[in-house]
Amino acid sequence: MISLADVQTPALVLDRAKLRRNIARMAEAVGSRGVMLRPHVKTHKSVDVWQKVRAGGNTRGITVSTLAEAEHFFAHGADDILYAVGIVPAKIARAAQLLRAGARLTLVVDDAAQAQAIAAAARLQQLVLPLMIEIDVDGHRAGIQPDAAELIPLAAFIAAEPALQLVGVMTHAGGSYGSSSAAARAAAAQNEASRAVHAANRIRAAGISCDAVSIGSTPTALATADLAGVTEVRAGVYIFFDLVMAGLGVADTSDIALSVLATVIGHQAQKGLLIADAGWMALSRDRGTASQPIDQCYGLVCDAAGQPLADVIVRECNQEHGVIGSRSPEAPLALDQFPIGTQLRILPNHACATAAQHGAYVVVDGDELIATWPRIGGW
Amino acid sequence: MISLADVQTPALVLDRAKLRRNIARMAEAVGSRGVMLRPHVKTHKSVDVWQKVRAGGNTRGITVSTLAEAEHFFAHGADDILYAVGIVPAKIARAAQLLRAGARLTLVVDDAAQAQAIAAAARLQQLVLPLMIEIDVDGHRAGIQPDAAELIPLAAFIAAEPALQLVGVMTHAGGSYGSSSAAARAAAAQNEASRAVHAANRIRAAGISCDAVSIGSTPTALATADLAGVTEVRAGVYIFFDLVMAGLGVADTSDIALSVLATVIGHQAQKGLLIADAGWMALSRDRGTASQPIDQCYGLVCDAAGQPLADVIVRECNQEHGVIGSRSPEAPLALDQFPIGTQLRILPNHACATAAQHGAYVVVDGDELIATWPRIGGW
Repeated sequence: MISLADVQTPALVLDRAKLRRNIARMAEAVGSRGVMLRPHVKTHKSVDVWQKVRAGGNTRGITVSTLAEAEHFFAHGADDILYAVGIVPAKIARAAQLLRAGARLTLVVDDAAQAQAIAAAARLQQLVLPLMIEIDVDGHRAGIQPDAAELIPLAAFIAAEPALQLVGVMTHAGGSYGSSSAAARAAAAQNEASRAVHAANRIRAAGISCDAVSIGSTPTALATADLAGVTEVRAGVYIFFDLVMAGLGVADTSDIALSVLATVIGHQAQKGLLIADAGWMALSRDRGTASQPIDQCYGLVCDAAGQPLADVIVRECNQEHGVIGSRSPEAPLALDQFPIGTQLRILPNHACATAAQHGAYVVVDGDELIATWPRIGGW
Repeated sequence: MISLADVQTPALVLDRAKLRRNIARMAEAVGSRGVMLRPHVKTHKSVDVWQKVRAGGNTRGITVSTLAEAEHFFAHGADDILYAVGIVPAKIARAAQLLRAGARLTLVVDDAAQAQAIAAAARLQQLVLPLMIEIDVDGHRAGIQPDAAELIPLAAFIAAEPALQLVGVMTHAGGSYGSSSAAARAAAAQNEASRAVHAANRIRAAGISCDAVSIGSTPTALATADLAGVTEVRAGVYIFFDLVMAGLGVADTSDIALSVLATVIGHQAQKGLLIADAGWMALSRDRGTASQPIDQCYGLVCDAAGQPLADVIVRECNQEHGVIGSRSPEAPLALDQFPIGTQLRILPNHACATAAQHGAYVVVDGDELIATWPRIGGW
């Protein structure tokens, strides 16, 4: 048996049992409301993880955040792909290559000039591009307001343009990452669903076909809401969860399937601090819990078995050094409990960001290393 | 000619002329004081960049932050390597492999129990491990205080242990990243040099050989200081510079050789904001300027030629979306100057962190793409 004690640190550890539990929870959450999940692969970027998600049921296609993901997952069997980041003409040639190879690749626009430029590029490629219009339900980033006057002319342009096909509308309730109660999440989920459906209904009322209504974020996908009119839900981070999600109350820290295995490489005895070989290169610079009631700094520290140590956090990071100490500077760590060479596991603020710092997952069942799953990067 | 207009975004752009200028500046700075530079490769992780640094003169060997860097650069011709992160027994087998292959690999310790464990591992490998003792000159991270009683017993243990060889002392004035005036940097540099030399002299006074005194950080390496007794200077980020260094006054924004090429993918007209296809995946989550007088948020925005746009910054980041706006929320951008498809270049807060998000450099001479230089990751 190969165990974590044999793994060179830092390393990205994935707990298979927790992964399975998280996948089952989301499959049940969407299935119970009669919708399908279009899982986002941007969190894991791993074909192996995606196969587990698909096996968990209630999924249809995938969502990607880069064309590199679209190309990689299509090469490994995903043929129904939503590229959920606004497209520009310079990327149409790569999208066209996927479409010609047989992928059902849907692109996203939120602007008339953008749609016109995309149409021109599509005509050059002699293709029909499936498009969704991005709707802004909570003012957090991109998209058109569901009540905006420009929504209907944009939909009409796409519907009338032979090189384009209007598939539907999509939105992402990114604002829900600020919802710290179940009631607030339920409200965000209801707002997301009803505003997206409203935008689709406005388009339909103008006599334009608009089949799909795609919504989603991990907090809203797990919240209770009336999903009448919604055709699919997208979510990504739920497969691993992280300290941001735990801080919101969407998950418990015991649900977090991802951790960074590190080794104690030094002591700062006067300060009661440990130095570990996981800095921001292994943990990422993400400080997503900084704005939450409990700031976990660069991560919550667990023993090698994955049990959180009460109030032990990564206080500071350099590139390859993590400074570990008590949450309270007045309570120095008992360093003799952590001799040099001790392995620790660090729960991440933000699973997407921490996973992105690594090339592979070390997959464990308990303490046993059962697989190494590669992940991709780049664009 | 291939130009940046042909490059898929986001992409990591390296300006060759600025790289050359930065390399020449540091070679002159250390050469004028009669010391050699042991350049840190952790910033660039690129054999191509290292070859330019070496050609710039006044260098001896390299500094690395991971054994993966040591293995990669040794395979490409670097044979004198300082691994500047505390070593643990579990990593000795890999170090031993490099030593047996002919590398002059020096390791770092700052603790007696650590040195004893390393010695045991070295004896198992039937090797003599070259070691440096890390000195803490400014309380920012690892190392032994130069005046600490435990310094001499540690040095004596290493000197007396047949499996270990005491090469010298090393320190990193990480505290200098908080020095925002030339006078403060000069003081930090003087403190770094004099305290490291003092530690070496204490060891020598105890009758123990201690040849090397290795110091360094980009701010202190470029500051004026009496380097008598110092045998080498280490620095890394100076090759690219970044907004943190510009904010300290160590460099000008026009010296920054690294930028992220991005494309405008959307407009938020009511807010006067642009959406670009460079989020934290391309820029990193590093917010190193947040504590400086001028907070550049996630980066300072330039036109495609690399000229900074006055007070235009990346205000927010999601994974693949960057929200670009004016520094002042009261001054919305004139969006018609940035049609969808417009390319921009974003100067990074922290070159090491931003470069780490990419697999290669797109090297340009002016607007012309002249090479693609790969970089490595992992541990």
